[in-house]
Amino acid sequence: MAASAPSSSGGEPDPNSTNLRPPGSSYDAWCGVAHGCTRKLGMKICGFLQKNNSLEERSRIVSSFKERAAKNLQLSCDNMGGETRFSRTETDFSNLFARDLLPAKNGEEQTMQFLLEVVEILTNYVRKTFDRSTKVLDFHHPHQLLEGMEGFNLELSDQPESLEQILVDCRDTLKYGVRTGHPRFFNQLSTGLDIVGLAGEWLTSTANTNMFTYEIAPVFVLMEQLTLKKMREIVGWPDGEGDGIFSPGGAISNMYSVMIARYKFFPEVKTKGMAAAPRLILFTSEHSHYSIKKASAALGFGTENLILLNTDERGRVIPADLEAKVIEAKKKGYVPMFVNATAGTTVYGAFDPINEIADICEKYNMWLHVDGLLQGCNSMCAGYLFQPDKQYDITYDTGDKAIQCGRHVDIFKFWLMWKAKGTVGFEQHIDKCLDLSAYLYNKIKNREGYEMVFNGEPQHTNVCFWYFPPSLRGLPDGEERRERLHKVAPKIKALMMESGTTMVGYQPQGDKVNFFRMVISNPAATRSDIDFLIEEIERLGNDL
Amino acid sequence: MAASAPSSSGGEPDPNSTNLRPPGSSYDAWCGVAHGCTRKLGMKICGFLQKNNSLEERSRIVSSFKERAAKNLQLSCDNMGGETRFSRTETDFSNLFARDLLPAKNGEEQTMQFLLEVVEILTNYVRKTFDRSTKVLDFHHPHQLLEGMEGFNLELSDQPESLEQILVDCRDTLKYGVRTGHPRFFNQLSTGLDIVGLAGEWLTSTANTNMFTYEIAPVFVLMEQLTLKKMREIVGWPDGEGDGIFSPGGAISNMYSVMIARYKFFPEVKTKGMAAAPRLILFTSEHSHYSIKKASAALGFGTENLILLNTDERGRVIPADLEAKVIEAKKKGYVPMFVNATAGTTVYGAFDPINEIADICEKYNMWLHVDGLLQGCNSMCAGYLFQPDKQYDITYDTGDKAIQCGRHVDIFKFWLMWKAKGTVGFEQHIDKCLDLSAYLYNKIKNREGYEMVFNGEPQHTNVCFWYFPPSLRGLPDGEERRERLHKVAPKIKALMMESGTTMVGYQPQGDKVNFFRMVISNPAATRSDIDFLIEEIERLGNDL
Repeated sequence: MAASAPSSSGGEPDPNSTNLRPPGSSYDAWCGVAHGCTRKLGMKICGFLQKNNSLEERSRIVSSFKERAAKNLQLSCDNMGGETRFSRTETDFSNLFARDLLPAKNGEEQTMQFLLEVVEILTNYVRKTFDRSTKVLDFHHPHQLLEGMEGFNLELSDQPESLEQILVDCRDTLKYGVRTGHPRFFNQLSTGLDIVGLAGEWLTSTANTNMFTYEIAPVFVLMEQLTLKKMREIVGWPDGEGDGIFSPGGAISNMYSVMIARYKFFPEVKTKGMAAAPRLILFTSEHSHYSIKKASAALGFGTENLILLNTDERGRVIPADLEAKVIEAKKKGYVPMFVNATAGTTVYGAFDPINEIADICEKYNMWLHVDGLLQGCNSMCAGYLFQPDKQYDITYDTGDKAIQCGRHVDIFKFWLMWKAKGTVGFEQHIDKCLDLSAYLYNKIKNREGYEMVFNGEPQHTNVCFWYFPPSLRGLPDGEERRERLHKVAPKIKALMMESGTTMVGYQPQGDKVNFFRMVISNPAATRSDIDFLIEEIERLGNDL
Repeated sequence: MAASAPSSSGGEPDPNSTNLRPPGSSYDAWCGVAHGCTRKLGMKICGFLQKNNSLEERSRIVSSFKERAAKNLQLSCDNMGGETRFSRTETDFSNLFARDLLPAKNGEEQTMQFLLEVVEILTNYVRKTFDRSTKVLDFHHPHQLLEGMEGFNLELSDQPESLEQILVDCRDTLKYGVRTGHPRFFNQLSTGLDIVGLAGEWLTSTANTNMFTYEIAPVFVLMEQLTLKKMREIVGWPDGEGDGIFSPGGAISNMYSVMIARYKFFPEVKTKGMAAAPRLILFTSEHSHYSIKKASAALGFGTENLILLNTDERGRVIPADLEAKVIEAKKKGYVPMFVNATAGTTVYGAFDPINEIADICEKYNMWLHVDGLLQGCNSMCAGYLFQPDKQYDITYDTGDKAIQCGRHVDIFKFWLMWKAKGTVGFEQHIDKCLDLSAYLYNKIKNREGYEMVFNGEPQHTNVCFWYFPPSLRGLPDGEERRERLHKVAPKIKALMMESGTTMVGYQPQGDKVNFFRMVISNPAATRSDIDFLIEEIERLGNDL
């Protein structure tokens, strides 16, 4: 995970840098945090990573961090003073309206009963989410939902609805949605419902503030600072120094990384625009996330100035290809400025050889961004951004770090989860996910009807494979076989959604026709759920 | 609210366009929605507004919308089948950990008890939020919180904490935070805690999906479409046609508006970068939100190519100044491309004369963006974006509309609030806020020790004023008086925060020294709270 900055000293590439399962505890801890987060938060690391931090140094940092024993905190019971316990009673909501709730006079009892009724709906949903006898989804086409399923009317009106109707709407909204926390929902990297994270998000909504200033979010601002510092320590930055914010997702974080690089090398662009800079070239893997391309379009570089790098058969950038393309760009008089290396690509879960890339960045004075990727960043995902250039923080516009004005409180659920699980809890989670992906890989690699998209154990929790229905197995390799295979995964997926039993993603990649991409991050998933997925694929695909 | 697009036909400027309190019902409805939203959602309108929609046409559209009677929906009781009712019992959480919760085997009972305990904490917080006998905040300096107030330890550790500790952390987090829903919290435009919105956000967190695709968010995707269509109908777009998404806030929405304009006029910038365009000039009010400046820096225009427009004494753009500056830019060979008009400025709450500006945009073929501003957009705020250029939607990058990858579900709480209040509920809310701002204005305009920052009734819910402590009242107008007055508002604000009784914002503007900006959007606020604010200012400022 070590990478280079233009200004850092040289050193030998770390042969372990692309392998996230080395024996060192610092790596374990880092893996635990980085990948534990993907389950709920989607963490993204960008900016300079210290190359000259040896493995030993990093181990020392993490050890000292581990030595700090978990403190037994004194329970502060005076918080409890003056609290009233409400219990849920049967309330007739058919004659109650939003206007009867707080801040309405005497609205307290109705408010409490309404909220408790909502909680009843939500806790029932949570309970069912983890119940394998329930469906992952109850699929309906848009026109069916728009026509009003069993009275579920999505249209808005001038006049208020009763709170009873609002509660029915809440139930229906959940009923016709997708249970992303279901043990058999594998559709996105962002699966799973973490109970502590959920509690944290409920609290965040209730506190209903934002990250503007310490003035209105004192606790959350400090939590964010401490959490980011801890993360930098684990990555191996001396004393956890640096800066950063959580952003609304990985795509925005990637955009920040390009902005920071531009400001570092061509600060005058901020005031004078791109006209003040020469033709700037960005590089990224052909397997990287499309947000880099979006950033190059949005920020005024132009997508033609984003050069895609070739990868090996495992989806890892070939460093020699980067160097060749840098030299080519320079020959044309362009200025190579930015390289995005991916630590865990979207589809294959590949880790680019960051140290080798870092050496090239150092040699040609380019910015290295490491996209500690969280692809399917979900509604709770938060990107993470290092801005080590202190001068930048001070001078950038009005001094605020975000391109946003208001900024959602993303930190609390993550902080609360970390408190509740400890770093070891994140470690255990990623270990379990890696175990499950190895289980799936070993189960299907020699199984009849399956073919792996690339050879060898997955680097990450992604397992990419084709399923060949019996009717395709005898076909000779050729265009007809390819064309028919291309239609298999979409068809099976459609049948899965209609039966509602499980969900898994698929896509083509380069010249490879549609294949399943199984990605394991759901804490509720077990080996039996992996078995179930394979059984479903075969059940639904057998007659295709 | 009518504005011009380069392609729309001409017409007389609407004299009512800058006044949000005309008698027409369409305006009322629109005000209701637009400003009701600011309380919880922070709505932002951008893009073309149809200029050639007469008042009558708009009334007709809104009337037909109103005629649609609220439907009595059949309650679908089969949703209730199989639900288990949990009641809160005394549970010992000191030996329970996150690992004991679902998906842990037999984790259901603990999970339910933990969530109910969290809800107990949250509902107590809600109750206190509306209680005027509680403080708005219990202020502590960063070092005090970092040192660990009464055992509240923000540091993260390797080992998990018990669920009992997690519950204590939740209580402490709320205890040391700021009650943004308190009737006397006036610090930001985004104040107030809406109970239905809160319930909606709890449900959104529980559903824990995102807006990627219909596949994983079928209900939310449709709700967003229907809600945006309804909003376009109210604004007056024929048949509510158009396109749009919710974005993470107003600043990002403003950035989108500049991107869309650039794509409209210079689509080749997307692939070739800003080098493919001439020198492009953007215009915005000197009173506008700083996010326009941020966008000009981020997107590669450069802040020097953003021209600030002069305003009148009420903070409204002077159209003649725009035209003069457009002509000046053209003389230099630059290309005027984009004008941001603000409907409700940050500080003064001023409405730019949109129709006059629209005429100039039409004349010089510039994009007009109307920033239906939500300044202090809070953690729940969502920006709103019109993308009327269909070709744009189809061709922009991979076809997705957002610069984000994952996108938070912002729609549900807003949809649920609209259901629960009806359009009329939003209307009533904004009417109440406008009444309160008029009450404050009338109370202080002739009161000893007060001076209004600008003359006349506020256009919006902003009331800007200076308070002169008795010691300053005898001073002659001059530098000493100005310097001393500049320090008054910050000092009073600091004392307010330390006593925790109320919070209100202040700032300088141009050559005007620090003044209070009272902005009323909190649904819990009443005239007595306005009285209280004035009393507090005088109590705390009397001896300065």
